Amino acid sequence: MKPTSSPGSEAIDVVAGIDIGATSTKYGLVDQEGGVLARGAIPTVRDDEDAAVAAIAEAVSRLLSRLGGETPLQGIGIGAPNAVFHRGTVEHAPNLDWSEIVPLAELFSRFFSVPVRVTNDANAAAMGEMLYGRVCDPSNLMAVTLGTGVGGGFVVDGRLLYGHTGCGGELGHLIAERDGRLCGCGRRGCLEAYASVGGFLETMRELLARDDARSVLLEKPLEALSGESVTAAARAGDLLARECFQRTGAVLGRVLADAVAITGPRVIVVLGGLAAAGDLILEPTRLALEESLYVAFRGSVEVVLSSLPEGDAAILGAAALIRSAVD
Amino acid sequence: MKPTSSPGSEAIDVVAGIDIGATSTKYGLVDQEGGVLARGAIPTVRDDEDAAVAAIAEAVSRLLSRLGGETPLQGIGIGAPNAVFHRGTVEHAPNLDWSEIVPLAELFSRFFSVPVRVTNDANAAAMGEMLYGRVCDPSNLMAVTLGTGVGGGFVVDGRLLYGHTGCGGELGHLIAERDGRLCGCGRRGCLEAYASVGGFLETMRELLARDDARSVLLEKPLEALSGESVTAAARAGDLLARECFQRTGAVLGRVLADAVAITGPRVIVVLGGLAAAGDLILEPTRLALEESLYVAFRGSVEVVLSSLPEGDAAILGAAALIRSAVD
Repeated sequence: MKPTSSPGSEAIDVVAGIDIGATSTKYGLVDQEGGVLARGAIPTVRDDEDAAVAAIAEAVSRLLSRLGGETPLQGIGIGAPNAVFHRGTVEHAPNLDWSEIVPLAELFSRFFSVPVRVTNDANAAAMGEMLYGRVCDPSNLMAVTLGTGVGGGFVVDGRLLYGHTGCGGELGHLIAERDGRLCGCGRRGCLEAYASVGGFLETMRELLARDDARSVLLEKPLEALSGESVTAAARAGDLLARECFQRTGAVLGRVLADAVAITGPRVIVVLGGLAAAGDLILEPTRLALEESLYVAFRGSVEVVLSSLPEGDAAILGAAALIRSAVD
Repeated sequence: MKPTSSPGSEAIDVVAGIDIGATSTKYGLVDQEGGVLARGAIPTVRDDEDAAVAAIAEAVSRLLSRLGGETPLQGIGIGAPNAVFHRGTVEHAPNLDWSEIVPLAELFSRFFSVPVRVTNDANAAAMGEMLYGRVCDPSNLMAVTLGTGVGGGFVVDGRLLYGHTGCGGELGHLIAERDGRLCGCGRRGCLEAYASVGGFLETMRELLARDDARSVLLEKPLEALSGESVTAAARAGDLLARECFQRTGAVLGRVLADAVAITGPRVIVVLGGLAAAGDLILEPTRLALEESLYVAFRGSVEVVLSSLPEGDAAILGAAALIRSAVD
């Protein structure tokens, strides 16, 4: 499809890319070349899907009008936790207090009369990395989001992996420790219970609860612990904070090794809150991954941070859900 | 490509499909409609790849001449353990005492001047099931081979999964038990160490070594234990033999749950030696799988035996490597 802009007009075809996280929702208006023309973020309304969608729709409309001139909205692509591409729904999202099955595409259609497509938030990130990232093999990559939840998106042999149910590519609920920590999904030992920000902080609290614990993090109330404060402590040389990263990376790398054996990626792109810690989390992950890999895969996979501006991978990937249909 | 047969001639285009297992090699001549015109089996030469290929080549040639008339061989498709599609090789096969890297396609080309393609034996089985099996959703299936090794082949969204290295779809070397049994690959706790025929028999020996063990299997020397003898005992009601199947299925189902979360199949087809036990192995596998599945996948996947004659799935799938290129 060609741009509809003509001389004298400021019309630019845009697609809205929306990345709904359990904590915040990021959104952007994306042009045909994958440029993010404008972006914004609001807190996600976690206890009411109707209110959540209304707030996002209002924010996107504001952004559209801020662009000025004629900005024909071509469609809306949404990445959301536990979203099911085939049905346009969000189902059983353990980190959102929404209804069991939320018809997300339909809810957005009440505000906008354009096509709406929905996919898993990590799938959107994987698609963004494939199309716009600077990875050495965009055809075989895994996107891992370490945020309120742990998400996985898999590009295998050049295509995003969906599977029969449309919710394949699950990573956060692979079992990392049998009979381990209780997970938000009701089972025990899921990767998410260790490598989400919440799981990471639980590990930190366990370390701080040791009788012989020494850490600058003990100088403040435990409730004030955050990914940022632990990262700052580790950067300043706090040994216990560093151990927390090492333990988290060790669990993550071990589970990634199984996912690599199944899907054979060339690159694993790490995104989300914990990714801000950079090598603090990447190094122990790489080490555990390489140690755990089956021989046929050793040395075959890199673990890197996203090359895209923060949040852009998921926005671009969500927008690409529409672009791939209309371009 | 059209058949080259003409009235008065008996010419039929055939492709050789070869399924190399660690114990035996099955082979067949497959016509354009997926009919297996002739088949055979020989023991696999495990300690010498040159001798192994020579023996298979001779057996296939014999089968070709037995068909009589003109039988133009279009190509050779081979499924083999640890085969790498992209390179036509078998690499680091833990259950074969072959060289580290065997150029299998090249070795076969010394005997036949037709195209030769190679893939993982379980991939070949998955392809055979997709093209010729009677599963309810051929686009999303997983083939699991329980033989000398444990293999996995994944058809996802209508395509065989290969990944960057060409050896994705690994299943036997996912970790079933951390720090568990030593596996042939040198690591500990791989699924293969529990759900291969050898792993299954090790579980049986552990059960028989209990102080209070009572079983008809104790009436014969432990060296005589085989998949067949344990199956016969279980069918006759031997409780310890039944427990062996239950334990094996429990480990298998648990690991399959992780593989399902990543690839989202509609059907899991179980093949290979242990599959001959039917529901004895399928029932505990189904139970453990369903118990272990993440909520989004519960009730979404069936575990069945192959609907194809024994060995045909892998032969047909291997042949399809060539058919998909020449038809």
